[in-house]
Amino acid sequence: MALEVAAIPFTFVVHILGLVSIVLVLVWNLYFRGGLAWTSSNKSLIFNIHPVLMLIGLIVIGGEAIISYKALPLKKEIKKLIHLGLHAIALILGIIGIYAVFKFHNEARIVDLYSLHSWLGIGVIVLYGIQWIVGFVMFFYPGGTTTLRSISAPWHVLFGLFVYLLAVGTACLGFLEKLTFLEIFSRLPKYGPEALLVNFTAIVTILFAAFVVLSAISQPPQPQADDDYAPID
Amino acid sequence: MALEVAAIPFTFVVHILGLVSIVLVLVWNLYFRGGLAWTSSNKSLIFNIHPVLMLIGLIVIGGEAIISYKALPLKKEIKKLIHLGLHAIALILGIIGIYAVFKFHNEARIVDLYSLHSWLGIGVIVLYGIQWIVGFVMFFYPGGTTTLRSISAPWHVLFGLFVYLLAVGTACLGFLEKLTFLEIFSRLPKYGPEALLVNFTAIVTILFAAFVVLSAISQPPQPQADDDYAPID
Repeated sequence: MALEVAAIPFTFVVHILGLVSIVLVLVWNLYFRGGLAWTSSNKSLIFNIHPVLMLIGLIVIGGEAIISYKALPLKKEIKKLIHLGLHAIALILGIIGIYAVFKFHNEARIVDLYSLHSWLGIGVIVLYGIQWIVGFVMFFYPGGTTTLRSISAPWHVLFGLFVYLLAVGTACLGFLEKLTFLEIFSRLPKYGPEALLVNFTAIVTILFAAFVVLSAISQPPQPQADDDYAPID
Repeated sequence: MALEVAAIPFTFVVHILGLVSIVLVLVWNLYFRGGLAWTSSNKSLIFNIHPVLMLIGLIVIGGEAIISYKALPLKKEIKKLIHLGLHAIALILGIIGIYAVFKFHNEARIVDLYSLHSWLGIGVIVLYGIQWIVGFVMFFYPGGTTTLRSISAPWHVLFGLFVYLLAVGTACLGFLEKLTFLEIFSRLPKYGPEALLVNFTAIVTILFAAFVVLSAISQPPQPQADDDYAPID
């Protein structure tokens, strides 16, 4: 299902939508929700760290990590380091973001892990970690044999995109869950500016992910004749 | 990103998970939620038509429509008719399912179209309809030129899978939204059997969709030498 078109234009759209989604999630949490705090008597400020880090980390930096092979006209070894490094940053920010929501639940005496959002979120972070470790061992150090790499490369891409789309879906579940709580418990107007902002942030996130996938299945900026790991074919 | 493995084993998993998800959504709505009704003084019974028809129609029959090219060792023209027909059934059940929830909102005096679930749901049904009409005109009647078909085939597959995954994500948003309402307004236990059932139904739906995609990008059961429309390459 590789597309015979250049990836570069799609990657520009990814960068722009990624920036827009970061601005939107910051406007939501800093302007509408009162800001971020690691310790506070206003426990909501601890919660606010969660959507900000998950979106910037797992979704935007994770998406940029996926498309790094298609966005940059660099040597394969450099792109591999960028791919690994960005995914490591995404994973670490994701783990801190999940820790923040457990801290909030603990201090605000809210029960853990009952919603579909939380179940899938735990699944995503575990699968993301496994994918990173297997990718590191297979394609970086010590690295599998050439045959093993070429057999596992399409599965690496496919499983990576599956986990990524699951992360984006989980983010959308989180946007809906939080907004539903605000509408019910804080009487937030259903058609008010904050509700519209959150729904539009979710839609921008979905479009971002669509262009990440489009970039991933399109053609890289220059021939990679020396590749032992051609993720898309 | 085509996989060099046979699609048939994946299509068996699709059939089984599809049946399981239908059983789960029926147990939820018939046993736990009191059944279905088109007219009733208990307006919840009108709502219940919505998840049942969306899951059986758009998700399960829609998924079977997608994999019909990979699941059946039949001639291409027959498979095309099955593909078109199943998608038409999925679309019609989806439209009736959406009509049911508007009918419920209207009779229970609930406002429409404020949640991310509803926004994406409208988007999905419109895009699904457009995809069906464009597919009909391009690949069935009157049909584009051979060149036009071969250029548009990968985009038909890609856009179709995008709309389908959006439908599955929207279904998961619906499961979470309904369960959140039940937990808040009907004091449904957060770890009780119904909550677990709904979350597991969502997870089975996600796995179903994953195997639909796996089937779609794997190899069909027999060579299709006479194909002018090879959706996967």
